[in-house]
Amino acid sequence: MARWEPGTPGRLQEAALELFATRGYEQTTAAEIAQSVGLTERTFFRHFSDKREALFHGQDQLVAAFLDGAAAAPPGAPALDVVAAALRGATGFFPDERRPRARVRQTVIEANPALAERERHKLASIATTLADALRERGVGDLAATLAAESGLTVFRIAFAQWIRDGEERSLADIAVGVLRELAAVAGEVGEAITRRADGSPRAGALQARQGQ
Amino acid sequence: MARWEPGTPGRLQEAALELFATRGYEQTTAAEIAQSVGLTERTFFRHFSDKREALFHGQDQLVAAFLDGAAAAPPGAPALDVVAAALRGATGFFPDERRPRARVRQTVIEANPALAERERHKLASIATTLADALRERGVGDLAATLAAESGLTVFRIAFAQWIRDGEERSLADIAVGVLRELAAVAGEVGEAITRRADGSPRAGALQARQGQ
Repeated sequence: MARWEPGTPGRLQEAALELFATRGYEQTTAAEIAQSVGLTERTFFRHFSDKREALFHGQDQLVAAFLDGAAAAPPGAPALDVVAAALRGATGFFPDERRPRARVRQTVIEANPALAERERHKLASIATTLADALRERGVGDLAATLAAESGLTVFRIAFAQWIRDGEERSLADIAVGVLRELAAVAGEVGEAITRRADGSPRAGALQARQGQ
Repeated sequence: MARWEPGTPGRLQEAALELFATRGYEQTTAAEIAQSVGLTERTFFRHFSDKREALFHGQDQLVAAFLDGAAAAPPGAPALDVVAAALRGATGFFPDERRPRARVRQTVIEANPALAERERHKLASIATTLADALRERGVGDLAATLAAESGLTVFRIAFAQWIRDGEERSLADIAVGVLRELAAVAGEVGEAITRRADGSPRAGALQARQGQ
C-alpha cells in the first residue's frame, strides 16, 4: 500500500500545508509555496494543477487502499464485512505518525468552505467507487449503495474522532468501534420499521420490488 | 405540515425552475425570472437573496418536517425508529403531485456542480440537526450521529429512486424499503466485524471507550 510520498510532490505538499495553516489558504499562492522550499512555480505546476490539489493529492491512493482492502474480503462475504475490510485498508493509509499532519490539514479545510466541499465530494466519490466494487462482487444494487455509503459515514466519523485533541487510539481501532456501533444501531430495529403497512411481518420486500 | 406555497414566492420559484430548465441556470438572471411572471427584480430580491435560493427555498420546512416526524416517535424508541419516524415526516413533504417538479429540479441541480454541492450541504446540515434532536431524546452521541447520517443516506437514495423514470411508488414507501434494507445490510454482520483483535466476542466496546 502506498504511504507518505517523499520527493518533490511531498515537499510541496508539506510546504503548502504549512503556509495554508499559518498565512491562510486564500493568502497563499502556488509561487510562494514553491519558493518556500527553493523550487519554482513552474515546478509546482508540473505536479499539481492548482494550489488546492496540493491538499488533495493522494486521493487515488486512498481509493486504492479502500479497494485493496475490499478485495481482501473472502468471496461471498456479507456486504458490511467487505466494507469492514475496505475500512481496514483505508485506515492503514493513516498510521499514527500522520495524525499531527491530518489535524493541521483538517483545520485548513474547515476554515474554507470550498475546500470542505472538495473534501465532501472526495468522500462521496469514494463511496460510489466502493459501491461499484461491491456490485462486482455480486452484492445487490441497493445493498451495495447502502453498505458503501455507510462505510464512508463510518470513515468520516472515525477520522474526525482520530484527529480530536487527546485521542490516542489508532484510526483502525476507532473505525471498528464505529462500525460495530452502526451494526448495533441498525440492528436495534423496533416495530416501526419492520411492520408493514398491512400489519404483516417483515419480508425482503424491497429487493423484490426493486427488480420489477 | 407546510406544503407547496402559493403566492409570490411560489410563482417566482416555478418561474425560476422553468427558466433554469429551459435556458440553463447560468444563463438566467433574477430579473428575467421576475419578468417572466410580470414581477420586478426588486420583488424577486424581497423574497430571495439570489437566484440560487429560488431553488432551495423551503429547506426550513423540510427540516421541520424531519423534526416533527422525529418528535412523533414514542419516548425511549430506538434511534433508528426515531429516524424512521423522521423519514415519515420528511417524505410526507413530497406527495406524488410534486414528483414531476422534483424531477425537473434534480436535472437543473445535476447540471451545475455548485448547485449539487449546495444540495449535498443541505442534506448534511439536516443530518446534523436530526442528530441533535436524537441526543436531546437521550440517544448516545455516536449512535445519534450514525442514526441521523443513515437516515439522510436513506432519504437521498429513496429520493433518487422516487424521481427515476417510471417509478410509481410513493416516496414514503420507497424510504421504508430502503430503511429495511439498511437494517438487513447492517444486521448481516459476520466474524470480521464482531470479532475483537484478541479473539473475544463482541461487546459494547465503543460506547464505553468513547466515554473515557
